Amino acid sequence: MAKKKFDTEMRVGVVGSGSFATAIVKMLTENCEIVHWCVRNEFVKGAVELRRHNPSYLTAVLFNLKQLRLSTDINELVSVCDVIILVTPSIYLDKALQTLKVSVKNKLFVSAIKGIVPEQNDIVAHFLKEKYKIDLKNQAVISGPCHAEEVAMERLSYLTVSASEKQKSGIIAQLLSSHFIRVHQSCDILGNEYSAVLKNIYAIGAGIAYGLGYGDNFNAVYVSNAIREMALYLKAIDPNTRDVNQSSILGDLLVTAYSLFSRNRMLGNLIGKGYTVKSAIQSMNMVAEGYYATKSIYQIGKKRKLKLPIVSVIYNILYEGKDAEKQFKKLTAKLN
Amino acid sequence: MAKKKFDTEMRVGVVGSGSFATAIVKMLTENCEIVHWCVRNEFVKGAVELRRHNPSYLTAVLFNLKQLRLSTDINELVSVCDVIILVTPSIYLDKALQTLKVSVKNKLFVSAIKGIVPEQNDIVAHFLKEKYKIDLKNQAVISGPCHAEEVAMERLSYLTVSASEKQKSGIIAQLLSSHFIRVHQSCDILGNEYSAVLKNIYAIGAGIAYGLGYGDNFNAVYVSNAIREMALYLKAIDPNTRDVNQSSILGDLLVTAYSLFSRNRMLGNLIGKGYTVKSAIQSMNMVAEGYYATKSIYQIGKKRKLKLPIVSVIYNILYEGKDAEKQFKKLTAKLN
Repeated sequence: MAKKKFDTEMRVGVVGSGSFATAIVKMLTENCEIVHWCVRNEFVKGAVELRRHNPSYLTAVLFNLKQLRLSTDINELVSVCDVIILVTPSIYLDKALQTLKVSVKNKLFVSAIKGIVPEQNDIVAHFLKEKYKIDLKNQAVISGPCHAEEVAMERLSYLTVSASEKQKSGIIAQLLSSHFIRVHQSCDILGNEYSAVLKNIYAIGAGIAYGLGYGDNFNAVYVSNAIREMALYLKAIDPNTRDVNQSSILGDLLVTAYSLFSRNRMLGNLIGKGYTVKSAIQSMNMVAEGYYATKSIYQIGKKRKLKLPIVSVIYNILYEGKDAEKQFKKLTAKLN
Repeated sequence: MAKKKFDTEMRVGVVGSGSFATAIVKMLTENCEIVHWCVRNEFVKGAVELRRHNPSYLTAVLFNLKQLRLSTDINELVSVCDVIILVTPSIYLDKALQTLKVSVKNKLFVSAIKGIVPEQNDIVAHFLKEKYKIDLKNQAVISGPCHAEEVAMERLSYLTVSASEKQKSGIIAQLLSSHFIRVHQSCDILGNEYSAVLKNIYAIGAGIAYGLGYGDNFNAVYVSNAIREMALYLKAIDPNTRDVNQSSILGDLLVTAYSLFSRNRMLGNLIGKGYTVKSAIQSMNMVAEGYYATKSIYQIGKKRKLKLPIVSVIYNILYEGKDAEKQFKKLTAKLN
């Protein structure tokens, strides 16, 4: 129900029309009288207007059309809104923004994207800063653990919003909080962006392991090695004092590595069961961010001479055509 | 297959006849020509001799009877063996040992028990030291993550053996290692004993949450709070420098909190679904260690004035008759 909390203060828009974008729009409609929503194309726009739900994702979520301002024009959305939440798959972000001409000055850009922008081989925060001159202080990041499917069911979920200024993360926290969403604030933009990228890679590995026939005992060891590898990576990228066992890092890894809703784990599972990488990707109707992230993270890690046994094995399987069974057999000797 | 590695060197015995005891005997038969096995009573002994498997647990594991020396007499086993592995439920340990009269000198006692000895309200290591004068240097602890059911299936599992002397943990590691068991060594007896006890409590909580209808998003937040609460507890009990994200601590928590094999999670699940605590306990045919551990850990925590929101909520539900739904609703505000 719209509570009109922010209607006169903040105009909020969402860019993207996948499952998590739809979930974010749902969260916002709990608090905002009007939510601006820039969807992929006229078909999606028309379908939402006709059926009151996203035609492809979270179809059980029915919107009150009076609350939505649908468009397919990024300039329209950015010019009207104060807060712009980006929720496209990372590989489509550059395309979604490339027609952007209106000023981004004094706008708060919030990324709920969990991936690497392939063109720049970098996280979204850096991409927005370099290509669109959006300063880090005008950026925020939304982290899980949060599967969109459970948001649709209004199952209690926790988000973390990171921004360099507490006042800004506070605005986003207020916009998203509701009876089924709790939001915590953080100032660790880089840690939360990188960990959101990394966890998708480890989730692919968890899926591969299950697909190969490894069980729960092994997965527990695998995940406890993954969080340590992640801690090492984050420390190398941004030597900030952070507890990797916070919900937005460990929790986000857990929900992705354990949940059957996870598309990254699903991709890995197919590969573990013997699908080729290509056919596994084709058989899924959603983008598994971890596939693209693996290449970037592997390359960044190599450049920095980091020892990342799990990322390396997944890279070898996804990009070097190496046999998953043999790669995991080797990996088992490196885990502890 | 018996590899005769240790037959002339070490005589090994197992005390207990539950599922994990059976799994440990299976592991040992991979390396030892003879495994001594002290089971609960004549019925179990006769059943194993007749059918070649434990009559009640891991019934698919068939033993070569020539490798087993079965008995029901703890004195017989202790007098013959150099290494004695204790794998009873913690509530039965005192009873299993109370007829012990033979000398324990120069024997290595290994605990694979994950619980608190209720009579002493203390961990097994302290109980053995105080009541049976078995010095900590003649003790070792076996930690998971390791569900017995997956050992039966020979799915790759990792154990951690802790002892104050590396040579001693090394002996146990050699006895247990096989193509499906990898063993790491540690010197953190207290950390690994307490964490094995604590994780059962948190697994009950995870089960309650699922039973109440909370989903994967919430569970990820819950577990990431649990490992931080556990870290705080371990630090207070034994201020050793340890990484709680090692397999024997975080991994053990994960396998117990996420796996459907976990009896602690199962107990919680029944309570979450509305069973009374008493009927939930009665409906399970295995002991859920976490039930007893909750009381002891809660009391120890209270004495030390530790802030343990999760343990407190589970204690309130299990021992104070408090409503699970209300308790968890309160807890959700304390998690982050």
